[in-house]
Amino acid sequence: MRKRFTLQEYKEGVLSGDRTKLSQAITLAESSLESDLNLASDLVQEVLPYTGNSIRIGITGVPGVGKSTFIEAFGQLLVDQGKSVAVLAVDPSSQKSKGSILGDKTRMEKLAGDKRAFIRPSPTGTTLGGVTSKTREAMLLCEAAGFDVILIETVGVGQSETAVKSMVDFFLLLMLAGAGDELQGIKKGIMEMADGLVIHKADGENQINAKKAKSAYQNALHIFPLGQNNWSTPVMTASSTTKEGLSEVWGMIQKYNLQMQASGFWASNRASQRLNWLDENLQFLLGKFFLEHQRVQEILQQNRQRVESGELSPLSLARDLITTFFNPTKN
Amino acid sequence: MRKRFTLQEYKEGVLSGDRTKLSQAITLAESSLESDLNLASDLVQEVLPYTGNSIRIGITGVPGVGKSTFIEAFGQLLVDQGKSVAVLAVDPSSQKSKGSILGDKTRMEKLAGDKRAFIRPSPTGTTLGGVTSKTREAMLLCEAAGFDVILIETVGVGQSETAVKSMVDFFLLLMLAGAGDELQGIKKGIMEMADGLVIHKADGENQINAKKAKSAYQNALHIFPLGQNNWSTPVMTASSTTKEGLSEVWGMIQKYNLQMQASGFWASNRASQRLNWLDENLQFLLGKFFLEHQRVQEILQQNRQRVESGELSPLSLARDLITTFFNPTKN
Repeated sequence: MRKRFTLQEYKEGVLSGDRTKLSQAITLAESSLESDLNLASDLVQEVLPYTGNSIRIGITGVPGVGKSTFIEAFGQLLVDQGKSVAVLAVDPSSQKSKGSILGDKTRMEKLAGDKRAFIRPSPTGTTLGGVTSKTREAMLLCEAAGFDVILIETVGVGQSETAVKSMVDFFLLLMLAGAGDELQGIKKGIMEMADGLVIHKADGENQINAKKAKSAYQNALHIFPLGQNNWSTPVMTASSTTKEGLSEVWGMIQKYNLQMQASGFWASNRASQRLNWLDENLQFLLGKFFLEHQRVQEILQQNRQRVESGELSPLSLARDLITTFFNPTKN
Repeated sequence: MRKRFTLQEYKEGVLSGDRTKLSQAITLAESSLESDLNLASDLVQEVLPYTGNSIRIGITGVPGVGKSTFIEAFGQLLVDQGKSVAVLAVDPSSQKSKGSILGDKTRMEKLAGDKRAFIRPSPTGTTLGGVTSKTREAMLLCEAAGFDVILIETVGVGQSETAVKSMVDFFLLLMLAGAGDELQGIKKGIMEMADGLVIHKADGENQINAKKAKSAYQNALHIFPLGQNNWSTPVMTASSTTKEGLSEVWGMIQKYNLQMQASGFWASNRASQRLNWLDENLQFLLGKFFLEHQRVQEILQQNRQRVESGELSPLSLARDLITTFFNPTKN
């Protein structure tokens, strides 16, 4: 059985930057035991005053784009500059392989060996809602442990991108250049979330294509409306093999940071992310209680397909379910 | 006091295409009285077998793009071809002016006078969530009344677009051509939702700019990933003054219809929209009960700002609120 510590032990361990305690605290937050969740919630509250000082970067891209090699090379660049870097992975699909713990550590061997870096593999056995809320907690715990930069890796083909976008300061999209193959199965809407776009593997013979892709994306993005932050998404090329372009990517993120700090967007974005997180938690917990209600579950199972086929009005079923949930005696 | 009818009277009135009864049925669905909502919910269930046969088109664009003149001219084209057309408006912001009822009818004077057309002004005094769920009901009631095409108008600057996108078959975005002014304050992300893009007011001297804008958008959209439906968003020009391009817009929508019917996307999209609608209703009703709980309300009021500022963990507040809601005696 896994060993648990007291709230105070976890707190002191995390705040002192103790890697083992940090890992254990994240494991606590990922637990599905009610008692663990209560303790984790208290721990997050306790360390909250020590959070908020890192730069939170989401990194996405389809499989094959080289996210791990990018994160390893980019993370190395940051630790060489004296920064401490924590890497978190959000990848519900990797749960299937059950090899993500070894996988992640193996993939980022060099970075994993650096004492300024901390690599946390994907949590296993949790739902998407679970994964992402756990990721927020893991992020805050890493911040409390003093990391300067948090890199959150996600696969650009699922639904986790919106969730990650809602917890980071900067959202980076990695793309490949390829003859007419620019779209590479990336999900519609992801590109519009990006604060920066990097054409990766821009080395060797691929450099020419990468430059072409860069200007094509620049032209395309130019015509799209700016977001609330008034930031025009830059497009860059980079190689994790030759390291070319990596420091420019970091420069872009620093420029974004400065500009958003000055405009006030940095702070207002984080404030609205906190309220979003509250909403998500409430929705998640309310939904959990609701769906655990036995009679609700039965009615839903019997009628969901009838709604899907257009036979039963969603409105009627919703009202039935809500009545059942709040007035069980009437049924 | 407004007169109410029996379920049977509403149903027969709507199914026979009686405009007055249809209007009254929509008003019933827009009511905030619990008894009205139950009746409306039953009515929607009753007419459900007679729905689903129209083409549902969402039309958006920023103020000034000429949505009303477009809908008037486009609607006229459709009624001239023998189609019956219902126009619904989703515009929470127009509630402020309190002039939307007169406003809508005046704006579309010619179409409003046509017996094949039905124009329903924006509902007033409701929240966004309310407006959009009411709009779905209004849409279904119009379908049951036999309309061939439903046009749902929304302003391209708010949050209602996602909601409208989730209830229509085709989402049309109107844009203006202008020297460097292409973005026109439209909200980020709206363009990626569009199934078709129309450069409006493409007449007189504006034609050259409209053509330029058209090819710029075409190039830009080309590089963005396709959605699930594998449809590449066409860009067109049109004028509601000269009527040029309007029949091409209708041709595009018909082509989309045929293609999506053949691929099965049309049906699967509507099926997932129905399940979405169920989810939305459940979330809305659960949230309503939750927020009406007095102690929940008090705790939330006292602590929301503390979450926003980063003083209180969203996780802790959410757990407190949920405990209060489900175990009131413990507090």
